[in-house]
Parts: sequence; structure tokens; C-alpha cells
Amino acid sequence: MDKIYEALEKVRKQSPLIHHITNWVTVSDCADIVKVFGGSPVMAHAKEEAADMASISAAVVINIGTLNTFTIDAMKLAVSTANKKGIPVVLDAVGVGATKFRNDMVKELLKYKIDVIKGNSSEVAAAAGISVTTKGVDSGHVSGNMIEIAKNFANERECVVVVTGKEDICTNGENTFLIKNGTPMMSKVVGTGCMAGSVIGTFCAVEKDYLFASAAALVCFEIAAENADKTSEGPGTFKNKLFDKISTLSDISINKMKKIEKI
Amino acid sequence: MDKIYEALEKVRKQSPLIHHITNWVTVSDCADIVKVFGGSPVMAHAKEEAADMASISAAVVINIGTLNTFTIDAMKLAVSTANKKGIPVVLDAVGVGATKFRNDMVKELLKYKIDVIKGNSSEVAAAAGISVTTKGVDSGHVSGNMIEIAKNFANERECVVVVTGKEDICTNGENTFLIKNGTPMMSKVVGTGCMAGSVIGTFCAVEKDYLFASAAALVCFEIAAENADKTSEGPGTFKNKLFDKISTLSDISINKMKKIEKI
Amino acid sequence: MDKIYEALEKVRKQSPLIHHITNWVTVSDCADIVKVFGGSPVMAHAKEEAADMASISAAVVINIGTLNTFTIDAMKLAVSTANKKGIPVVLDAVGVGATKFRNDMVKELLKYKIDVIKGNSSEVAAAAGISVTTKGVDSGHVSGNMIEIAKNFANERECVVVVTGKEDICTNGENTFLIKNGTPMMSKVVGTGCMAGSVIGTFCAVEKDYLFASAAALVCFEIAAENADKTSEGPGTFKNKLFDKISTLSDISINKMKKIEKI
Repeated sequence: MDKIYEALEKVRKQSPLIHHITNWVTVSDCADIVKVFGGSPVMAHAKEEAADMASISAAVVINIGTLNTFTIDAMKLAVSTANKKGIPVVLDAVGVGATKFRNDMVKELLKYKIDVIKGNSSEVAAAAGISVTTKGVDSGHVSGNMIEIAKNFANERECVVVVTGKEDICTNGENTFLIKNGTPMMSKVVGTGCMAGSVIGTFCAVEKDYLFASAAALVCFEIAAENADKTSEGPGTFKNKLFDKISTLSDISINKMKKIEKI
Repeated sequence: MDKIYEALEKVRKQSPLIHHITNWVTVSDCADIVKVFGGSPVMAHAKEEAADMASISAAVVINIGTLNTFTIDAMKLAVSTANKKGIPVVLDAVGVGATKFRNDMVKELLKYKIDVIKGNSSEVAAAAGISVTTKGVDSGHVSGNMIEIAKNFANERECVVVVTGKEDICTNGENTFLIKNGTPMMSKVVGTGCMAGSVIGTFCAVEKDYLFASAAALVCFEIAAENADKTSEGPGTFKNKLFDKISTLSDISINKMKKIEKI
Repeated sequence: MDKIYEALEKVRKQSPLIHHITNWVTVSDCADIVKVFGGSPVMAHAKEEAADMASISAAVVINIGTLNTFTIDAMKLAVSTANKKGIPVVLDAVGVGATKFRNDMVKELLKYKIDVIKGNSSEVAAAAGISVTTKGVDSGHVSGNMIEIAKNFANERECVVVVTGKEDICTNGENTFLIKNGTPMMSKVVGTGCMAGSVIGTFCAVEKDYLFASAAALVCFEIAAENADKTSEGPGTFKNKLFDKISTLSDISINKMKKIEKI
């Protein structure tokens, strides 16, 4: 984890194209965050172009926050194209556990190769098939050790699993990192979870080690959030300053502020 | 109307889940405003999950700003589920009067029990079946006394009717309040009308007296807007500071600044 | 080009209704920008009301950023209604060249009369039928002289062609303007391109000379961006201050700062 800034530099230099099929609540946040990190976001949900757009992208981010039956078809086409071409796929399992429809749809998506599965604790647990109590798209109660659940799910799927929360878990089953950056303000605004998924996709576009990429993405995003929180007057100005602080993120602040632990 | 702050406290403590089926222009504003008030917003417009999501919610907000035939089906499912379970339903009648399609669709929705019907003067008048001249989603000309129109409509429907404007009208037919808070800046940015509808839904989730809940919601929202206007440099910074000022709204400022009149 | 401020004044006084069928990423930016310029934005994409909404509007803006087969039908209805009534139509050719679907759809739309075709260099070239290499919705490589491509396309279509970039080209084939206002920050945030299209539509609603209207729109928008950039701390605060600076745009700053050249 000494090379986090180098990963950020790669994003800034390569400006990878990140194809999203995402929800309509935070779609603009997701585009903004990829852009200020130095990437090039594209959002295209028509099934007629989903495969074409995926095939020219450096990563595909699938977010089921406001899923419907039209976009699910486009998602499958984008993911299967990405799979064929070795393009990384990130699945943000927003709200899984809240309705049968979401549970069913995520099962459909998990028939494909997903490189990084990301969610809060109840979303990841529900995606892993564990019974949870949820409340819409916010995290609900999970019985069991979340680190073990994430590791088992990662081993079973041979992928990276990311669980966001006060401390984030990033694991590929074999190696596991805890990230302790971030600020409580992140949970007081809409969109930080979805943005985290987009940032993970952006880093996976430039780093073949998706575990490292996911952890590096979260460290950068959350350090910027800490910097934004220090100078903001509330959730409204915080969100704006978050974009400002990402664009000025330096190697000095990353190395000084990163709180990441291998467990 | 001495208990406005107590209602806000309930929102902050209970963090009610507010299910929206809304428009794609201000969907993110609506989610943001519920969140900064302390609620938990969820936006799910697929007909496959609309009923399930409504059934776990504390209020349902229906906003027809960018209505189409797919979402109307989801709206009906969400509303009929809410009706069965006694969950309050708020209808924001955006742009009614502007096209035949909106007029027809609102008639469809009014076949269900709606607890609060909200709009600007021409929208409420058009929903009540009165001929109006409108201009898109902005308020147009209504001939007749708006207070009487609102009261009659509330009596006819046995619901609360809210008419937003320079002065807001909240009535259940029997009791009527005029709210004189707010600032002209609110009409210079997109989304304040839709956000008002979401805030009303959020307060109805914690207060069974929907007339009081609607009035309390508007007072809180508009006092925050006044506070934001004082320190903003224009419509862009205003919208951000509006979110900041909601999160710090105190009983002192509410009691000092509220301008509400029973008529 | 001495009457740019007068055009802005007309927008502020007439507050024209600008109907959009646009993408879901920047739809809120587009509504916001029309509003702060003094116009009245409406976004209605259901095919059941697209014609009705277009017929009461002063301009129609079509943006294919997240096109799908449902909205393409609504776009055709809105454009054909506008054509019949002499209402100006602006087409923002977002991402043309990136997928076959977008290329096909733009060909469909070009069967109608489009008054202003707007895009970055690769989008305009692709719309004109010239082979390009693109990267999602960002500008790609075009071989050939962009000014000549734009002039030829404008002559062939008898319309105004606008190519945005470091310097913007506005041409009707006969007369051509280069606009050198703006700031590099504009390309570091999402939405400035789409907003430019909405502003062009807003000015075309009040000025029958669409070449002048397009150039005046870009000059105003980009001067405000320069003013915003001077006082912002990064892309987040820039976007907010952009809205602030538009609302205070004066004749003095326009006349002092405008950089427009007839070639």
C-alpha cells in the first residue's frame, strides 16, 4: 500500500473511460467524481449501445440503485462484453436485501464474472445469500462477523469484496485490508456510497490488482472527504468541497493521512 | 403550531424511510433534502418493487414532474400499498394543467387515497378541475380565490391541500394556515418546489396530523432557506447553503422566525 | 455582436419556456442553467406529452447523452411539432461517433429540420458523416479543418453549426464566429457542454438570428465561467459559482470581457 499515490497518478495521466449503468439519483455525482479524479465518465443505459460502450471502456460500473427491467438487460450486455474483453466490472449492490426484485436481479448479475462486489454490510451480506434486515438503501442489521462473511464471499466468487462503513473491508479472501479513513459527514449526504463504487471502478481501470485498486480508491476518496469536512459548514458545502479536494490530492497528504491496516 | 421543533426532532430521531417515485430532474435534490432533515430517502420506480418498497416505508411521495407510462404503473402500486397499510401519501402535482397527459394521469392517481395534494396555484387548481393557463412547470394564472379553491378541494377529497407560493396555503378544508416564511431566491432555483413535497412527506411520516405536519415542514424548510439566502452570493451557493442550514436548524430560530397564521 | 447584453436582457424579461428532452446525467444542470439565465425550463420525455409541451415552448433542446428507444420517439414528436410551429430546435449531439446506435439515431433526428447542431469537434464531425475516433462523450481526434467541416455541414443543412472547444466555432456557412472566452476549468467538470446547448436554446427563443443567438449565448455563459473560476477553489465550488455569476452578469462585464472574432 505504498503505491497509492502512484495509482492516482495513473488515473490522472491515462484518464480512463469508465462506463456506468447506474441509478438516476446519484448518476450526476458518479460522473462528477470520476471526472474530478481525472477519469472520463460515460453513462449509457440503452441496450442497443451498452455492449459497444463497454467494449471501448477501461472499466464498467454497474449500480442497481434504481434498477428496472430495461436497464438490467443493458447491464447484462455490458458485463458480458467486459468479461469477454477482460475489462474489470464493479457491481455496487445498492439496496439488495430491501426487495425481492433486487435480490432476484443481483442473482442474475452474479451469473457473470464480477471483479469487485461492493456494498454496505447488509447489501454485501444479502448478496452473499445471508438473511438481513434492511431499511431501503441504508445499512441494516447483519448477524455474523462481517469480515468473515466478506472473505467467504470473495473466496466463493473468486473476486474482490468491498464492504463500506465506519471502517471499510477490502478482501480477495486471501488478503484483507481495513480502511479507517473517512468522516461521519459522508453518511449524512446522499451519493457517497455510489461515488465510492465509481472511484473503485476508476482505479481498477489502471491497476490490474483489483484488491489494491479498491483499497487505494477508498483511501484517496476518504482522505479528500476528511479534507472537505474540515472546511465545510454542513452537508451542502461538504459535497462541493469534496470535489475540490479530490482535484488537489497530493502524495504528501495521502502518505500522511492514510489509515490502512492489513489483517 | 408550538410543536414545530418537536416534529423536526422526531424526524431526526426516527429517521423515517421515505419512498419516492419522482421526476429525474430533481430526484437528487429530493433525496438530499430528506437526508439532511434526518430522514432516509429511497427512490425506486420499477413496478416490480414499488409495492415492496412502499410497504417498508413511513411515507410515500409521488411527484409527476417527468411522468411516463412506466412510472405511472409503479406509482399506482406504491400508492395502493400505502393506502392498505395506512402509510401517508403525498402527491406533488408538478405541471398539471400544462398537457392533457398530465391532467389524465393525475385523474388516475386521484382514484386512490392521497393524504396531501401539493402544488403551486395553477397546479392545484388544475388538479381540482378548474381551467387554468400554465407555462410548463411554473405557476400560471388562476381566476378565483385560491384559498377557497384549496379549501373546497380539501373538503371534496377529505385530504390536506398545500398551495405553495409567496404565501403558502395549508388546509384540510376546516382549518387553514398561511405560511409567510421563505425568500424570493427559492423561486430562482430549480427544485425547491419538489423538495418541499419531499419534506412534507418526511414530516407526515412522524406526525399523524397531516395538516400540522405539512405546515411544520414548510416552516422549517423555508426558515432554512431564509438563513441560506442571508449568506449566499447567488442561486448556486444558495442551494448548497440551504442543505447546510437545514442540518443546523434549532428550536430558537424556528420559534423566533416562524411566520404562520391561522385564518 | 454589439447587442449581446440586449439578448440576455430579452431572456431575463421574456423568461421563455425551454422544453428539453435530454439525458439523465446533466438534466438537473440544464434545468438550473436555464433558470439562472432567467428562462423557464421544462423537461418532459413521455411521448404522450412531448408534442403538447413543445407546442407551448419558445425553444426545444434535444440532447442525446443517454438516448434510448423510448426517448427517441418523444424527441421526434417534439421536433416535428416545433418544425410545424417555427419553434427553434437545438440538437446537442452528445457522444455521436462513439457507438453505432448514436450514429443511427442522430441520422433519424437529422431527417427533421434542426436549427442549431451543437457538439464538440468529434461529435460534429461524426454527425456530418466524417469518420472520427472518439472516447465516450469527450472529444476525440478529427482529421481535417474543423472550421471547414462546420461550414460545409451548415451549408448542406441550412442551419447553424456550433463546435465547442478551446475556441468555439459558430457558423451558418456564410458567416463564422470564433469565441475565445471560457476557462480550462469548464472541461474539468461534467455538464458544461450540455449546459451550453441549453443556453443556446434559451437565446434562440428570444433572437430569430440563430447564429447571433448561439454566439451570444456562448459568450455570456463563458464569461460567467471565467468570473466563477477566479473565485473558486476547485471544480466543486466552480460549478456553484458559475450559477451565481450568471445571475449577476452585467453589460459592463460582457462588453469588457467578450472575445469574439468574425472570420
